[in-house]
Amino acid sequence: MAVGSGELAKLWPVKGFQLATGCAGIKVAGRRDLVIMALAEGAEIATVFTRNAFCAAPVQLAKKHLADTCRKSNGIRYLLTNTGNANAGTGEQGLKDALQTCASLAAIGAVDVEQVMPFSTGVIGEPLPIEPILAALPTTFTALDENGWAAAAEGILTTDTRAKGASRQIDINGETVTVTGIAKGAGMIRPDMATMLGYVATDARCARHDLQAILNAAVNKSFNRITIDGDTSTNDSLVLVATGQSPAVLDDGADRARLVEAVEQVCIELAQAIVRDGEGATKFVTVAVAGGASVAECLQVAYTVADSPLVKTALFASDPNWGRILAAIGRAGVDSLNVDDVKVWLDDVLIAERGGRAASYTEQAGQQVMNQEELSIRIDLARGDVSETVWTTDLSYDYIRINAEYRT
Amino acid sequence: MAVGSGELAKLWPVKGFQLATGCAGIKVAGRRDLVIMALAEGAEIATVFTRNAFCAAPVQLAKKHLADTCRKSNGIRYLLTNTGNANAGTGEQGLKDALQTCASLAAIGAVDVEQVMPFSTGVIGEPLPIEPILAALPTTFTALDENGWAAAAEGILTTDTRAKGASRQIDINGETVTVTGIAKGAGMIRPDMATMLGYVATDARCARHDLQAILNAAVNKSFNRITIDGDTSTNDSLVLVATGQSPAVLDDGADRARLVEAVEQVCIELAQAIVRDGEGATKFVTVAVAGGASVAECLQVAYTVADSPLVKTALFASDPNWGRILAAIGRAGVDSLNVDDVKVWLDDVLIAERGGRAASYTEQAGQQVMNQEELSIRIDLARGDVSETVWTTDLSYDYIRINAEYRT
Repeated sequence: MAVGSGELAKLWPVKGFQLATGCAGIKVAGRRDLVIMALAEGAEIATVFTRNAFCAAPVQLAKKHLADTCRKSNGIRYLLTNTGNANAGTGEQGLKDALQTCASLAAIGAVDVEQVMPFSTGVIGEPLPIEPILAALPTTFTALDENGWAAAAEGILTTDTRAKGASRQIDINGETVTVTGIAKGAGMIRPDMATMLGYVATDARCARHDLQAILNAAVNKSFNRITIDGDTSTNDSLVLVATGQSPAVLDDGADRARLVEAVEQVCIELAQAIVRDGEGATKFVTVAVAGGASVAECLQVAYTVADSPLVKTALFASDPNWGRILAAIGRAGVDSLNVDDVKVWLDDVLIAERGGRAASYTEQAGQQVMNQEELSIRIDLARGDVSETVWTTDLSYDYIRINAEYRT
Repeated sequence: MAVGSGELAKLWPVKGFQLATGCAGIKVAGRRDLVIMALAEGAEIATVFTRNAFCAAPVQLAKKHLADTCRKSNGIRYLLTNTGNANAGTGEQGLKDALQTCASLAAIGAVDVEQVMPFSTGVIGEPLPIEPILAALPTTFTALDENGWAAAAEGILTTDTRAKGASRQIDINGETVTVTGIAKGAGMIRPDMATMLGYVATDARCARHDLQAILNAAVNKSFNRITIDGDTSTNDSLVLVATGQSPAVLDDGADRARLVEAVEQVCIELAQAIVRDGEGATKFVTVAVAGGASVAECLQVAYTVADSPLVKTALFASDPNWGRILAAIGRAGVDSLNVDDVKVWLDDVLIAERGGRAASYTEQAGQQVMNQEELSIRIDLARGDVSETVWTTDLSYDYIRINAEYRT
């Protein structure tokens, strides 16, 4: 299941950024499971990786290669992604395997090995089958094309039921700047770094330092504000590439702000697409916490509500069992919370105030909101001026089925 | 579903502690949903309550009555429990309703209102129907009996599928001391204070201050070490009563230690019974973390593993998908964890070391352990000498069904 139509948006090509999708047959024969992305010379790259201590071999190697290219000033030129195997929990051998796939692509592309960044997604703890990857690389390489976005959006999927992409174009003094991105992820989703894999590219010119700042800001409004099951993956990786091939010249003020906004919008659209395609999702739920004294306590409340299995099963049942929302707020660990001041709404229906059910509330009004495929849980803590929003899904039979049968 | 046989143990009566179970018809006509417990004059009581900020009206009132009896030195004489309605999220009216039920029982028992402690469990956010409770109190009161434990164990249940009781007798210089307890709870279970309701009584003589110390210690080895769904209830309450009616005279050394051990054993047995009867549970899982630098980090790792939906669905599927265990350990937030030193076992089968699958591990060996109804996940962090154990269940279709249909 999934929420909304899920049709892949029109993805504008980004000058200087090519994509190719191939079939290595890593887990299933004939499935598109290998994606190469090529960055034109001079492109800059910014990255965000999982904070899971057991981070996967490709994540470890990607970080190392980024540092190596910084030192040598030769730049990342290829991103290599495989699905069907996460190459995580694979120890020393996993690092060797990841390095070998990078070396093979580097040879084909005539670049140094550190100029290739590896990404893997799929089952954890099984050795990466590198033979099929090495065998499929040369053919796949020949398919590199700036119009390869839609195929690549398919090629990076695992348990996802649909491809996820977003694209924006902005006009800077008559010149067009494009921001296009794709992402994958449907389970094991939660900050820090929520998508398992995300790739966003722009043809804007942007220094690496500034590019990283733009990415960090966008992530904290998008991928770091979604949760499906509270689990953080070992492989989460997001990159933002700036090829600098648009003729547009951006000033540091209004023009940069518009680029920031476009990147942010693409990231939010991708992050929300991941939630809509959450494993077993039947609802898309916005949890908005206002009136907090700090960002931390707003997020604490938002995530406690969003991750509560009892709230999630009530959402699945379209049951306005708002007591479970109050219980989740109450156990979120907010210091000396005055529960009598807390208000809770379902969309615009006030359901709770003064520690109990609102006088104006009717079960019918609550039920009407709950019946919707998309709805908001809004919470006012009445302690300050900070607000934060996260997006999540319900918890359904299908979540159990997908995750109980994942390896069978 | 539930794990193990679930037969109710022999519950020894405790001199000076009587129980009566009645049918008020709060939610379902004819269901046993009302329990009165009577403490003989001079009995001492110790309590632990939920830390949820939205704590229920009966919890607020029970705390107040305890303080009032301390001030007046007249002692708690009755515990009044209803199921079918939690009287939580009910605001000012909820407090009035709880007080009225206490006043009514106090009148029947010819004690002061503060000598009655109220307990409620059931749906949150609906007004407590007090008429049926008030109507059923007089008849129920006449049934008070020291042999009422088994009926009361049934009378306090909600979504539980079985009654939970435990009993120990120890011999102190030829005199018998009894410790008997019952508990209820199957969902919305997790520390702080894990059972929704628990009542333990002993005929030992014990000062209130010492009784509270004994209860606190026992709770941290039992009810505060279990998790079913990571949700903490608004109503969790546990009481330990000492009637002092056994002729045994306990010294402060070995005798007290034996009483402490008996209380602890009763609490652990009750806490584990709650896990075995966890909503939709098909497995009873011990998560044992050793080699930690602190209690906090051991519990952090243990709960992250025990509450991970991905680990829980793998347990439900009897799938030795140990990569999910590694991923959970990795995201538990342990500061500078050296993942290469971490070892993980399923029972005695070493599954992971040096950041990957153990060389000696075979899928068959892992599968054999996973097929069991009861199993251990053992984790060595190799950072220190502290160890902690928590107990949990899997996450099954039935958990979703029970919680999605709870109010229908």
